Amino acid sequence: MEKKVVLTGIKSTGRPHVGNYIGAIKPALQLAASNEYSPYYFIADYHSLTTVQNREQFKDYVYRIAASWLALGLDPEQSTFYRQTDVPEIMELSWILSCLTPKGLMNRAHAYKSAVEQNLQNSLDQDAGINIGVYSYPILMASDILLFQSDIVPVGKDQIQHVEIARDIATHFNHVFGETFSLPQYMVDTTIAMVPGLDGRKMSKSYHNTIPLFCEEKELEKLIKRIVTDSTPPQAPKDPDQSSLFLLYREFASENEVEQMRNNYRSGIGWGEVKKELFLVMKRYLEQPRQRYKELMSNSREIDKILHYGAEKARQKAKPFLNEIKEKIGYSG
Amino acid sequence: MEKKVVLTGIKSTGRPHVGNYIGAIKPALQLAASNEYSPYYFIADYHSLTTVQNREQFKDYVYRIAASWLALGLDPEQSTFYRQTDVPEIMELSWILSCLTPKGLMNRAHAYKSAVEQNLQNSLDQDAGINIGVYSYPILMASDILLFQSDIVPVGKDQIQHVEIARDIATHFNHVFGETFSLPQYMVDTTIAMVPGLDGRKMSKSYHNTIPLFCEEKELEKLIKRIVTDSTPPQAPKDPDQSSLFLLYREFASENEVEQMRNNYRSGIGWGEVKKELFLVMKRYLEQPRQRYKELMSNSREIDKILHYGAEKARQKAKPFLNEIKEKIGYSG
Repeated sequence: MEKKVVLTGIKSTGRPHVGNYIGAIKPALQLAASNEYSPYYFIADYHSLTTVQNREQFKDYVYRIAASWLALGLDPEQSTFYRQTDVPEIMELSWILSCLTPKGLMNRAHAYKSAVEQNLQNSLDQDAGINIGVYSYPILMASDILLFQSDIVPVGKDQIQHVEIARDIATHFNHVFGETFSLPQYMVDTTIAMVPGLDGRKMSKSYHNTIPLFCEEKELEKLIKRIVTDSTPPQAPKDPDQSSLFLLYREFASENEVEQMRNNYRSGIGWGEVKKELFLVMKRYLEQPRQRYKELMSNSREIDKILHYGAEKARQKAKPFLNEIKEKIGYSG
Repeated sequence: MEKKVVLTGIKSTGRPHVGNYIGAIKPALQLAASNEYSPYYFIADYHSLTTVQNREQFKDYVYRIAASWLALGLDPEQSTFYRQTDVPEIMELSWILSCLTPKGLMNRAHAYKSAVEQNLQNSLDQDAGINIGVYSYPILMASDILLFQSDIVPVGKDQIQHVEIARDIATHFNHVFGETFSLPQYMVDTTIAMVPGLDGRKMSKSYHNTIPLFCEEKELEKLIKRIVTDSTPPQAPKDPDQSSLFLLYREFASENEVEQMRNNYRSGIGWGEVKKELFLVMKRYLEQPRQRYKELMSNSREIDKILHYGAEKARQKAKPFLNEIKEKIGYSG
């Protein structure tokens, strides 16, 4: 039996940080390594264009994302790892699907609705500052998903609607032109915990509380020291599961170390001590990937080569299926 | 000096009728024959998909349109004659442009606004029955125009806005990413008269008053007999310029014949006589093209071959320019 296709799009809208790693990269790499699925992981740079409209930034983010995933162990043989801008079939399908998408469906998309709400709160025109890319990107996302006949799309809770929209569009297409698309399922991984940032809130670019994934060790040490803690004295027992430091520690330490640290928390350990330990395990864990990341970033042609290889694999699947879809609508070229 | 690019999209949403010929095909062929421009004429079948969602119909219309233009003398060497579905670069640019298109611009597009108005008049949701293809097709049209660096776009008055939208989007792109697109001009041909249909109203598919361009002679004769006239007696002098029959006659007769017919109108001629003469000149004019049309329609592979040839010419221009555009946004594959 063919392996199920699992598809994940990675937006290239910023430098990867530790929150991205724990929340998205690590689980995706584990899934890929499990060898149970056929993973399609792609850099959604055409999505990023809705917000990143600066040539140097656009380029920089794409390479940093690609280099990060590769440095952390993504295997371009085992996975199909590509860049959206290298697969024009996605854009073509996107137009086809847009003709099958009722405008009302896009009006109800969460991201658009919240942008409208914010405009209204600021007494602006409801569509102020919203471009058509932002408005219709759930269709591009449906195209990403459907073109590769994805079975499973891992998402955060806030992304469930996108998979539902893809299903709606696919169902409508199948109804009009005959059975063509299989319906994708979303998969919400509830085991992934919220990753706390420096200030204890969710680690997020927009809160300016991130730890860049491949910053230099000196900076890493400095940032870890800045992580907010409470004023419990060193000797007092502490609850590891309520501690930002521990939540980060357990992602980078060995099982034994995590067990040991749990005990230390219960018997009492100073925050300074925990921070020192956290720095040591993160440093150890990220040392090799950082080295590989630097190598890749200094040789973007190698990244291009890997991405082209992935795009070729992706297009081997995309081209014949797009042709099949085009024949369904009546194209006979 | 390079010839100016003149670009025309032909929607494949119905069987070509005499109104299409006089209003669009004939002037476009004259322009192409003048040898002053580099004509890009294409079948806008991806546009048609917004409304034609039936496989057989989609295919049928595309072939009929292509066969008609070729049968009437379009030279695939002199013009670049292609099918939108054969040029994926158009769809890719369309996404790029959609990220540079404020949603407000689409909200103000005439076609969308009038669809909304009609919905509201019928007490429906304002977006009822409107798909995203219908809503955003001015962007696809901008892509059609800008990808080939069109200088001139011949349009009817109701299409002027589309060229203006293309200019707006191009200007915005140039502002954000640096000078890339030249701004197209629209050209409204005011010499093209309204073509009357069987009932005297404008000949239009939606009025069911058309004369199919390549119907059989028997049917042509029958349809001409059905053209509405008034009850002026045969001997009474008539104003040729107020007569549907004359407006059609002058498109298919020689100059001398037109002059003669003018005189006949003034001195008095019966409607039956005019209809007989109209049938004769139309029959004569359309005889050879009809033969060629039939040949082509019975050999759709030949049509495909010609369209592929055109698409290849079109892509020779589109590919390097799209790459240039992609580099501007930060793609470096």
